Amino acid sequence: MTAAAPSPAGAEPGLTQALARYAVQARYAALPAAVRHEATRTFVNWLGCVLGGCREPAVALAAQVAVQLGGRPQADLIGRGVRSDIANAAFVNCIASSVQAFDDAHLATVTHPSGPAGASLFALSQTRRIGGEDFLGALALSVELQCRMANTLSLPPSQINVGFYLTGLSGPIGAAAGLGNLLGLDEQRMAWAFCLAASQGGGFRSSHGTMTAHFRAGHATRSGVWAALLADKGFDGDATSLEADKGFLDVYAAQADPALALRGLGVEHEMLRNSYKPYPCGIVIHPTLDACLDIQRRLDRNAALASVTLRVHPLALKLTGVRRPATPLESHVSLYHWAAAALLRGRAGLQEVQQSCIDDPAVAALRERVEAVVDPSLGRDQAVAEVTLADGRRFSARTEVTRGSATRPLTDDEVDAKFRDQASTVLPAARVDELLAACRGVASLQDVGREIGALLG
Amino acid sequence: MTAAAPSPAGAEPGLTQALARYAVQARYAALPAAVRHEATRTFVNWLGCVLGGCREPAVALAAQVAVQLGGRPQADLIGRGVRSDIANAAFVNCIASSVQAFDDAHLATVTHPSGPAGASLFALSQTRRIGGEDFLGALALSVELQCRMANTLSLPPSQINVGFYLTGLSGPIGAAAGLGNLLGLDEQRMAWAFCLAASQGGGFRSSHGTMTAHFRAGHATRSGVWAALLADKGFDGDATSLEADKGFLDVYAAQADPALALRGLGVEHEMLRNSYKPYPCGIVIHPTLDACLDIQRRLDRNAALASVTLRVHPLALKLTGVRRPATPLESHVSLYHWAAAALLRGRAGLQEVQQSCIDDPAVAALRERVEAVVDPSLGRDQAVAEVTLADGRRFSARTEVTRGSATRPLTDDEVDAKFRDQASTVLPAARVDELLAACRGVASLQDVGREIGALLG
Repeated sequence: MTAAAPSPAGAEPGLTQALARYAVQARYAALPAAVRHEATRTFVNWLGCVLGGCREPAVALAAQVAVQLGGRPQADLIGRGVRSDIANAAFVNCIASSVQAFDDAHLATVTHPSGPAGASLFALSQTRRIGGEDFLGALALSVELQCRMANTLSLPPSQINVGFYLTGLSGPIGAAAGLGNLLGLDEQRMAWAFCLAASQGGGFRSSHGTMTAHFRAGHATRSGVWAALLADKGFDGDATSLEADKGFLDVYAAQADPALALRGLGVEHEMLRNSYKPYPCGIVIHPTLDACLDIQRRLDRNAALASVTLRVHPLALKLTGVRRPATPLESHVSLYHWAAAALLRGRAGLQEVQQSCIDDPAVAALRERVEAVVDPSLGRDQAVAEVTLADGRRFSARTEVTRGSATRPLTDDEVDAKFRDQASTVLPAARVDELLAACRGVASLQDVGREIGALLG
Repeated sequence: MTAAAPSPAGAEPGLTQALARYAVQARYAALPAAVRHEATRTFVNWLGCVLGGCREPAVALAAQVAVQLGGRPQADLIGRGVRSDIANAAFVNCIASSVQAFDDAHLATVTHPSGPAGASLFALSQTRRIGGEDFLGALALSVELQCRMANTLSLPPSQINVGFYLTGLSGPIGAAAGLGNLLGLDEQRMAWAFCLAASQGGGFRSSHGTMTAHFRAGHATRSGVWAALLADKGFDGDATSLEADKGFLDVYAAQADPALALRGLGVEHEMLRNSYKPYPCGIVIHPTLDACLDIQRRLDRNAALASVTLRVHPLALKLTGVRRPATPLESHVSLYHWAAAALLRGRAGLQEVQQSCIDDPAVAALRERVEAVVDPSLGRDQAVAEVTLADGRRFSARTEVTRGSATRPLTDDEVDAKFRDQASTVLPAARVDELLAACRGVASLQDVGREIGALLG
């Protein structure tokens, strides 16, 4: 309820002010080597996902509206041969990175911070000269604040809110923080940007499996862009909005502890608990996929599968319990589809999300014979699969730590291979190699938007 | 979780589908005369508020960002001599109509539906030929659905949610409904538009008294524009999103009864319970102003006021309890300021929101001597004021039904006088008369955007 100085003289700064100060001061040089390296991996993974997703129907439709509205040609709608203003470009590029459900996941909150971070910052970098270290510093900041706000919104802290779409709540704040850092906002304007960003937060999970699921991420990104640009001009807000009575945390998670967002800030990096997806579907399906792929490798060719029993963490069914997906987007949230496809095909990649796989009679038949049982003793990155063959033989596998998770991360080579697969759907092979090298060396670029942008056309 | 047909054959349609059907079919010709007349009054009041607010700092800053981003010159940023795309124009024009807190209020929910309705529809009307009756039919639809969704979100139904900013939740849906009606969306796409709109809902009340308070209304409007344009292209969503598990009502008001939104739809018109503000401040201050102005008329010139006691509905203090406003925007939510200003000046208009009045030592001193007491026996449109003079004499007044409320509405002449006051701040007198006549006759216009737009320049 105040646009001016937020804390009485001598008082500890509140959450909004403390995060604003951190966001203003955050610099690449202050990050530990592991976080710097992770920031590069985040950029590589994010850009690969944009290239992989940029021709999807949801992206084409969003781009149509962006072009209809116009906007100065400030930044690329990547892979689509058109430009628009940075708000529209960030919006469309974030939908592209999200739409194949192949991006990243902060498992503690089931949020996807790289979209709002990468899309907002890359769009801005196409409008002004931003060096690689500054870019990566802002990217790390953006991811960090999204994860911390999502942690704080998760009540009780060990659970996620399965109703609100948390990327929609944390994404605008993270995007605003990263942009505000590069725009040079002072603490007051950064706090206003957080108020503007938080005021645009929203979204709920019933739209999972539709284009709107990915729209929400794009909207979060655009919201952060508007927040930073408005605050930069002096458009004011409540400088205590995150922790205020009737403020952001109060309405979305009244029992939340604002201190949680600040604990270890600058020392403990949530970005290191973010991970890149090896499979293009909901992160809570991944441990089941590891187990099913393990079993499949042990089966005879043409083995007749009679039934499948999965034991999974409760979230897996809450978030991905669609039994009979009708479309590729619905398959992202169908545990049953992916178990069946992995067991029959020995793969869990982009081919398994094609309509032809969803409609494959063998896959559809096996989906009906998959039973999933909640086992609260399992962690989110754990699962058990048991397969019974027609001849009575049984196979089982247990995933203790899923591939691609924070404690068993994809290697750099695996991240690069994923990038190549995705980028090669829209770029010639030589260009893919050149682009990947530039992305891997992003820290040393003088002008990220120009140098990377030149390789995207 | 489904983009396709929402209800099983033979089942009653759910809330989303029922509202989508209503929104597709709604026509001016089906409205009773009283609602038609109210739609015209809503348009007059809305456009007057835009003209009154279009030069305010918050509007100038929002327009700066809109111009920075560009956008095709599809619609006017009214009163600012520039155009942008319809999403940007709707956004800026809604901030203009909101920023003086002089617009309208649906007292049952303390929402302000005319901004999202008027700003979205007028922007669209500047891009295609829309006749007056179609325009007013869409306007009435937009207001109606906003009020109904806000009623449904208010839990318990007799109370409002003082945390979430309900215009931010209901506004996008109403804006999408009105635009979707004019764009000719079919039921399925209208339902998708509702999902996209609802996914952008949000905002909280701690930013009251700052520019962000008005940003939220503009954002709601723009959200509805994007929702309708995307759905029109075929961008899909959850066709049951309003009532679904993990859907809109579930996350924002889990105990809500979706049936409330449908009760009497098409027969009982919530638009008739919306009202136009006679005073430029929070609607819950208005009954106090009536009482204070009544007392002031009975006081001797230069009477020495010793103390003031107000008895008010609980919401008045919850929403407008700022004791010492520092800025014009903060004064919008200061019951104390308005009571003091009205008692000293005998007016409660735009002059009393100027910085000079806020800083006036006499007003500031009297603010400190105003005591406000919650009286739960009072209705939202009731208040009691008691004034004690230095010589011991006491005066009191009780507002039974506040001026401008739904049961004691402003007359057409009063609405017109308000319009003239506001419009004359930016237009010459002759043009004001011409514009008012056009607005009063909007139902008979052939091309609302062109004919009204020509008078705004």
